[in-house]
Amino acid sequence: MTQFNQLIEDLKKLNTGLFGKDFLLTWDKTEDELKQTLLVAEALKHLRDHNISARCFDSGLAVSNFRDNSTRTRFSFASACNLLGLEVQDLDETTSQIAHGETVRETANMISFLTDIIGIRDDMFLGAGHTYMKEVGDALDDGFKHGVLPQRPGIVNLQCDIDHPTQSMADLLHLVNYYGGLDKLKGKKIAMTWAYSPSYGKPLSVPQGIIGLMTRFGMEVDLAYPEGYSLIPDVVEMAGKQAVASGGKFRVVNSMEAAFKGADIVYPKSWAPFSVMRRRTDLLQKADKDGLKSLEQECLANNARFKNWECTEDKMKLTKDGKALYMHCLPADISDVSCKEGEVAASVFERYRIETYKEAGYKPYIIAAMILNNKFSNAAEKLENLYNSGKKRIL
Amino acid sequence: MTQFNQLIEDLKKLNTGLFGKDFLLTWDKTEDELKQTLLVAEALKHLRDHNISARCFDSGLAVSNFRDNSTRTRFSFASACNLLGLEVQDLDETTSQIAHGETVRETANMISFLTDIIGIRDDMFLGAGHTYMKEVGDALDDGFKHGVLPQRPGIVNLQCDIDHPTQSMADLLHLVNYYGGLDKLKGKKIAMTWAYSPSYGKPLSVPQGIIGLMTRFGMEVDLAYPEGYSLIPDVVEMAGKQAVASGGKFRVVNSMEAAFKGADIVYPKSWAPFSVMRRRTDLLQKADKDGLKSLEQECLANNARFKNWECTEDKMKLTKDGKALYMHCLPADISDVSCKEGEVAASVFERYRIETYKEAGYKPYIIAAMILNNKFSNAAEKLENLYNSGKKRIL
Amino acid sequence: MTQFNQLIEDLKKLNTGLFGKDFLLTWDKTEDELKQTLLVAEALKHLRDHNISARCFDSGLAVSNFRDNSTRTRFSFASACNLLGLEVQDLDETTSQIAHGETVRETANMISFLTDIIGIRDDMFLGAGHTYMKEVGDALDDGFKHGVLPQRPGIVNLQCDIDHPTQSMADLLHLVNYYGGLDKLKGKKIAMTWAYSPSYGKPLSVPQGIIGLMTRFGMEVDLAYPEGYSLIPDVVEMAGKQAVASGGKFRVVNSMEAAFKGADIVYPKSWAPFSVMRRRTDLLQKADKDGLKSLEQECLANNARFKNWECTEDKMKLTKDGKALYMHCLPADISDVSCKEGEVAASVFERYRIETYKEAGYKPYIIAAMILNNKFSNAAEKLENLYNSGKKRIL
Repeated sequence: MTQFNQLIEDLKKLNTGLFGKDFLLTWDKTEDELKQTLLVAEALKHLRDHNISARCFDSGLAVSNFRDNSTRTRFSFASACNLLGLEVQDLDETTSQIAHGETVRETANMISFLTDIIGIRDDMFLGAGHTYMKEVGDALDDGFKHGVLPQRPGIVNLQCDIDHPTQSMADLLHLVNYYGGLDKLKGKKIAMTWAYSPSYGKPLSVPQGIIGLMTRFGMEVDLAYPEGYSLIPDVVEMAGKQAVASGGKFRVVNSMEAAFKGADIVYPKSWAPFSVMRRRTDLLQKADKDGLKSLEQECLANNARFKNWECTEDKMKLTKDGKALYMHCLPADISDVSCKEGEVAASVFERYRIETYKEAGYKPYIIAAMILNNKFSNAAEKLENLYNSGKKRIL
Repeated sequence: MTQFNQLIEDLKKLNTGLFGKDFLLTWDKTEDELKQTLLVAEALKHLRDHNISARCFDSGLAVSNFRDNSTRTRFSFASACNLLGLEVQDLDETTSQIAHGETVRETANMISFLTDIIGIRDDMFLGAGHTYMKEVGDALDDGFKHGVLPQRPGIVNLQCDIDHPTQSMADLLHLVNYYGGLDKLKGKKIAMTWAYSPSYGKPLSVPQGIIGLMTRFGMEVDLAYPEGYSLIPDVVEMAGKQAVASGGKFRVVNSMEAAFKGADIVYPKSWAPFSVMRRRTDLLQKADKDGLKSLEQECLANNARFKNWECTEDKMKLTKDGKALYMHCLPADISDVSCKEGEVAASVFERYRIETYKEAGYKPYIIAAMILNNKFSNAAEKLENLYNSGKKRIL
Repeated sequence: MTQFNQLIEDLKKLNTGLFGKDFLLTWDKTEDELKQTLLVAEALKHLRDHNISARCFDSGLAVSNFRDNSTRTRFSFASACNLLGLEVQDLDETTSQIAHGETVRETANMISFLTDIIGIRDDMFLGAGHTYMKEVGDALDDGFKHGVLPQRPGIVNLQCDIDHPTQSMADLLHLVNYYGGLDKLKGKKIAMTWAYSPSYGKPLSVPQGIIGLMTRFGMEVDLAYPEGYSLIPDVVEMAGKQAVASGGKFRVVNSMEAAFKGADIVYPKSWAPFSVMRRRTDLLQKADKDGLKSLEQECLANNARFKNWECTEDKMKLTKDGKALYMHCLPADISDVSCKEGEVAASVFERYRIETYKEAGYKPYIIAAMILNNKFSNAAEKLENLYNSGKKRIL
């Protein structure tokens, strides 16, 4: 049986309800649904790598709504849409204001008359990003129900304040391929740890996404951060429960060394403290520039107390056989390369550089899988048809 | 006979000359040509709603030239082009300068070597927008004549200083569907009336477009505005003549109540006075910032004298059975929602909110119809072929 | 034999290695490779003019990386990509900083997972643009070698600090069509000459591209500029050697009149002196605003000493029979039209205006040819298949 046929067989065994459902948080999805997303992504990559067209749409629009700057997620989304035959139209809300009520409801409908999918990135304000996506979803439901929209466009979360599912799922697919199967992750230890960076205000969605996803598959997840750099409490609590349910472990530690010890995988990455993000959100909403300035100073000074939270060669030696897989969502703050002192030593990063690129390379396929699952009730059949038709991409 | 076949039969009865002609002003088009635009829009919507591809181009470019900010028109144009298989390339002239002569002539050719259609929005300067579109058209004629361009790209007016045909035609199609036919509009009373807004400088093209179009079909059109808020005199005069010719009525009144009385349809919407737009155009051309600032103050103060020009529940009671259809091009200034005091009471807007969304939903199809009519000499045949081929849009 | 079949026959005679190779400098390509680029461009134009689809990709991305403003090159690139079936995604680096090392390496991979071609414009900094393109190319090689990228995207130079191959090749194709064949250029005299402009800092890549290309085909190339306005010495030296090798001539003169004398073709165009561009690059890298301001003043003052370097009717009379072909990459600084005193007299420009438009019209096809040659190992066969399939572009 070919690799592709195996993917299709595995897909057919799953019992899922992704069709017509937005992809906002990985923890709203069943294990089968997450597996389906991984399998469809693999199948799409297989088609592409074998020059078979994965075009599912003759024409159609995908709207990208970036409420924060982005290069790689923008390209991942554009690549995913193009792969399936959708054309991206950007809705750039340059002013990072938080739109409310009527405006959201109306705009959601105005951009959706001929739209199949909407990708949203809104990670600036704690308590706002996920809420905004649900508000857009409600507006689309309303428009569809009342006959304004001939179809209900799906929503893909391209990063919110709570989760970053396209990143964490790409990370997971990287691990699946690195270790040779999802079942191989059981018992593997991953250290999701804060790391020093000379910048400020980085979102919490990456570490939250990682602990919220990796605890689903029996992994041993250590979350490490210095005093004060906690995440959203609900997400941390949920991660703990998920670990128990999946036969894994989850603990919070306060040293990078403790998390690295015996780890198979390390994910050292900076973020802002939950409490700071809340204050920042308040100040942004009040447009208090002086307040924001002094908060930044305070935070950078506080960050600087933890410059030893760097992923160095010495710390890597603490990991399993000294050979843990280093992961990062990129771009990393590399000491002596992108900054004087940063998240990771240059020699460590360089050794895993190609792996981090491969990790990133799964994102377009994960996004495309989320779109395909949303728009087609039988993903396996759809993929099989594409494969069997054998239509070339490069003609 | 299916609904689609009926549309095609109706189309075949018309005698029109839209092929290869720019769509700049509705009053430059015959009644048959307007009907064809409506019918083609309906047919395209039918194809889309039944998942039949409306792709008429294997590849090809559509240029959008927005000389003013826009979200919904931009999306409507992108949707229309994508529906037909054209890819949009934006020509953003961020500086709102009025380009003249050589620059226009040259740029028009430079962007058109492989271009099928150009959508232009230029509504900032009285006396400039329509003129600019004709200048672009002349340049394209010249380029085509001399062999620079292998084809003459068509132009669609996405809003100028005089008319807003994609809006007014979408509004008309909404009325046709609301009342069950173009012939049903005969004798219906529509109140196109100024309304208070706490903003300044809104273009005249919507009210002008409405009175310039609705007087073509035997409707009773009331134009209402407070002293000083008159429109371009030529357009008003023409509307009067058209009403007579079509067996309808046209009058200008100076109270919202008078216009609303017995109306089947109300269209309350703010605009700037003609005289103010002329002064503003002069000041913009001189880049006189202080002058613009003081003109704005003067206008806002003047607007404030007419806060009672609001579409309230009380005024709605004056309309036919108290149940006139409320229309708006969106976004509306909704009292207590988008502003403290605005064009329309929140309860009135909310009751017709879904209808205004549907109204807007016709715009992509109207634009697509204008493009199709421009590029194909036999629209009925083209649509019939698409329908009969039955190629799916979502594959 | 049809014109198209003749092009294919001519193509088949060539022995080239363009497949999988970036197109950065014309002088890195063999004469056969330049001929292939011209022939493929002609063939693509033929297909388009006869409404035959030139679509070679069912889906796929083309990245445009403009590190400088551009309208016409942006449209040419978008047109070329659309012609072949690729969708453009812009990577706009709005800040004109010079990215180094890690950032370039990483970004090049991040935008390339599903990318077929990358068009880059980077002409602001002497010594940087070409270097940047090679750096991107190395990063792509590295990513492809290590399995990060499933294919190696090709790079097309859309203008660097050294060469502007899409411009010079479009110019050459214009000459080929104007004179009836590449062999007809042998012995023709072309005057590439500096001209006065009231602006500052125009790149050297156009004159360098022209002398670097036109000396390949036995033409007599005169480069003329006032004292101090020299080009990159290496390029000038190379042009001389090429002229000798191709049986043509190359000389540098210091008066427009000398260059125009007996010329078949004149190309009067402003540029900044090499030494000034170097100082400017230093100042830009130091972000020395005052230094840049005073350099600009100094340069404009120096330019003003050479206002007599204008392509006037009198100077045109010095050319072969007074009828030399006037060329320009557009937009030209036209005296009394786009500026008070400029590169060319209005009457001269107007007489050749249509020819300059035609000249520009070859650029989309030249770019498409560069892409096709990069992605398909047998361009002749690919084109033949497109022609024989006869699939319509406008359906």
